[in-house]
Amino acid sequence: MIPDLPPGAVAVVFHSVRHPAAEGYAEMAEAMDVLAAQQPGFLGIRSVRDEQTGQGISVSYWLDDDSARSWKAVAEHLEAQRRGREEWYAEYDVIVAEVIRAYSRP
Amino acid sequence: MIPDLPPGAVAVVFHSVRHPAAEGYAEMAEAMDVLAAQQPGFLGIRSVRDEQTGQGISVSYWLDDDSARSWKAVAEHLEAQRRGREEWYAEYDVIVAEVIRAYSRP
Repeated sequence: MIPDLPPGAVAVVFHSVRHPAAEGYAEMAEAMDVLAAQQPGFLGIRSVRDEQTGQGISVSYWLDDDSARSWKAVAEHLEAQRRGREEWYAEYDVIVAEVIRAYSRP
Repeated sequence: MIPDLPPGAVAVVFHSVRHPAAEGYAEMAEAMDVLAAQQPGFLGIRSVRDEQTGQGISVSYWLDDDSARSWKAVAEHLEAQRRGREEWYAEYDVIVAEVIRAYSRP
């Protein structure tokens, strides 16, 4: 289930198309998940990738926009972003949005 | 790439875990993608599912929250939602959020 999302919570939607041979990607992705969870304001993350098409969507949730921006600027994450641009992703985009409402089942 | 997202645009993040045997799901998912694209205020949709785990994330973009709400209430979509709850999804959640900023590459 999704975490409880307080008012002002921010969702960062990361959509990417990964190259078929993306050496070092899996290790980095796992390391970044661990590191993200240690950041102030981290509320949760969901990632899904279709290995057939290379398409992935990852949505991370943050207490506020400052938390989301701070994570983007963490040194190890900057290095991951650089490798993503240069080595792993054919394309990507990022959308940052403020949560209005949420519901779930069950 | 993502569509141009005007100020006030709304992202609807749908995360689901689908049952392995989900009869009729693929046809309905395709029909709903076509129908969504015909709705007023529709800006785009992205969907990724990992067939190994059943996990999926779908993000649709709307001109405003009224457009997103209207789509939720379209009759054929209500029927798809009902079958999703009763037949296809082990769990799901929906988060509606207002776009703050977006960037992409290339």
